[in-house]
Amino acid sequence: MEKRIYNFSAGPAVLPEEVLKEAQENLFTLPGVGMSILEISHRSKTFDKIIGDARDDLRTLLDISQDYEILFLQGGASLQFSMVPLNIMPPVNKADYIVTGSWSKKAVKEAKRVGEVNIAATAEDTKFNRIPKQAELKLTADAAYAHFTSNNTIYGTEWQTEPVVGSVPLVCDASSDILHKKIDINKYALVYAGAQKNMGPAGVTLVIIRKDMLERSSDTLHTMLNYKTHVENGSMYNTPTTFGIYIINLVAKWLKKNGGLDAMYKLNKEKAEILYKCIDDSDGYYKGHAEKDSRSLMNVTFNLQSAELEQKLIAEATAAGFSGLKGHRSVGGLRASIYNAFPKKGVEDLVDFMKTFQTNNG
Amino acid sequence: MEKRIYNFSAGPAVLPEEVLKEAQENLFTLPGVGMSILEISHRSKTFDKIIGDARDDLRTLLDISQDYEILFLQGGASLQFSMVPLNIMPPVNKADYIVTGSWSKKAVKEAKRVGEVNIAATAEDTKFNRIPKQAELKLTADAAYAHFTSNNTIYGTEWQTEPVVGSVPLVCDASSDILHKKIDINKYALVYAGAQKNMGPAGVTLVIIRKDMLERSSDTLHTMLNYKTHVENGSMYNTPTTFGIYIINLVAKWLKKNGGLDAMYKLNKEKAEILYKCIDDSDGYYKGHAEKDSRSLMNVTFNLQSAELEQKLIAEATAAGFSGLKGHRSVGGLRASIYNAFPKKGVEDLVDFMKTFQTNNG
Repeated sequence: MEKRIYNFSAGPAVLPEEVLKEAQENLFTLPGVGMSILEISHRSKTFDKIIGDARDDLRTLLDISQDYEILFLQGGASLQFSMVPLNIMPPVNKADYIVTGSWSKKAVKEAKRVGEVNIAATAEDTKFNRIPKQAELKLTADAAYAHFTSNNTIYGTEWQTEPVVGSVPLVCDASSDILHKKIDINKYALVYAGAQKNMGPAGVTLVIIRKDMLERSSDTLHTMLNYKTHVENGSMYNTPTTFGIYIINLVAKWLKKNGGLDAMYKLNKEKAEILYKCIDDSDGYYKGHAEKDSRSLMNVTFNLQSAELEQKLIAEATAAGFSGLKGHRSVGGLRASIYNAFPKKGVEDLVDFMKTFQTNNG
Repeated sequence: MEKRIYNFSAGPAVLPEEVLKEAQENLFTLPGVGMSILEISHRSKTFDKIIGDARDDLRTLLDISQDYEILFLQGGASLQFSMVPLNIMPPVNKADYIVTGSWSKKAVKEAKRVGEVNIAATAEDTKFNRIPKQAELKLTADAAYAHFTSNNTIYGTEWQTEPVVGSVPLVCDASSDILHKKIDINKYALVYAGAQKNMGPAGVTLVIIRKDMLERSSDTLHTMLNYKTHVENGSMYNTPTTFGIYIINLVAKWLKKNGGLDAMYKLNKEKAEILYKCIDDSDGYYKGHAEKDSRSLMNVTFNLQSAELEQKLIAEATAAGFSGLKGHRSVGGLRASIYNAFPKKGVEDLVDFMKTFQTNNG
């Protein structure tokens, strides 16, 4: 078996080795089934159990009450940027959006096609290096909903706690930090997330929707864009991404086995602290992009004194087996994505590497 | 390694064993990469090559000229039922649909949300057991496009050759027979197909679109629903279903290695003939659902004298290792789906089983 490297990619991202091994072992024939998971009908009892288990395990892990439906859709968070306003902006047809990065902006762009968008706050003036304070939010009392992005992969910022929006339904794009800690789902009307960071491979979108929101979906919506279609058909109106849901099921089992989301949060904090400490103790050699109180536990973004030095570090790091450290093409710099499945040892090794690099290139 | 059974499922469906074995071998770490295909960034050089190869191989296999774009999308054919009219029905806002089964009807339902739909022909009066004759088609000279479903999984019918629609752009849902033979793409303006029959696992939708069609897509369309978005971004506006595209790439290589689509067509005809001969030679014990000149090479549908006998056959067949023979829940009876990757030996074994069953239950 070939040696695995440290994968700091922002997504698709590292998955638990146990999950990969089980998926590999059973890829040719699923035990007791005589077919590959890639070949089984989504209408089979075998797949019914897989999707049911995935749903149930997520319900347990996130403590999701029966007031919510759990859906596995396609099209990524990007399609949700449209489905959310198409379904739940009417009849009010105005919504609040808190803009904390590129993904929030993309969500706003689609929402504007449906109705009036009020930018409740934006951190664009400081290159999205911070999460707006509660006092800054200019909320609309009668908005259809208020939307925020819980973690910003590109800028490395993360809401430490949800914005308080009163009785307005709260909607969250949690693509890049879902399952990294327990959140109080009861505070939300709708949470959506692409799978490809903390949940599984690309190609599945999780949607957790409070049942009362479904009353807003008009029957004039295109069938595939209507949340009611997917609720009424248990995410199987058409063929879902069966393999992706299978992997989500394995990841959920791995999370449960390893202490659930509280244990995961503890580990995520430890991993992030090691890396942020290295940055903070570097006498300004490494400069964190995010303000300290807005730092993400998932994506650690930082710069060096020059683009040349950054390139040198990335080249040497890649050669040493640390992959995916280049910052997003829209901002540059460096980014270490350290999702749930990223090993603590990998963070420690990266810090050793960074210290040596600083010594050699100080 | 556990014994594999014969999988007659209509989709997700059987995949080539060679493809499954290669995917399995490399699932933990892709050779030379040190990461699983499930973990690699869609922005990496490795994935660039995978998606590029998949595109190029499909272009070669189907002989697709540079007048066409090849896209890998999400949402299945069901989302295409909406994307097609949303993008290319304007500005004319009327289109012809030939209705040959449940999937055509679903396509019509979404198209009606966009504009005027003319049903050019329907075979619903005879339980969709036939493909309309060319002379029956009531086509509209100035339609934005004419839509047909090349193969009808549920009813087991298939167009032997495309309908002739003059200068009107021809659009085809080829989900269940794409790649089963070479078609003349130049006759088409747009072909779409879910991957989960002849191409790969569920979660990827292939769209082949003639470039002039893209001029019709309005900038007011939601970003993810606009074909131009996906063309301009090489199917990577957002994260695509990376693993599904990887498997499509392996399947395309397998097809090329095994003689391409002409060899595949020859084999598909042989397989279907074996099964249809068994039905035709059974003195009416087995009754084919489709009229002979409308028979599908992919899905062979038939009935026995009673529902009880059908259930008995299905139960005994399942016990003997023939899985997925139950007809679609909307029509009952039996259905043997024998896609590209289904082995000829499996068809021969099924025929032996059916003959024995007839003898024992005659």
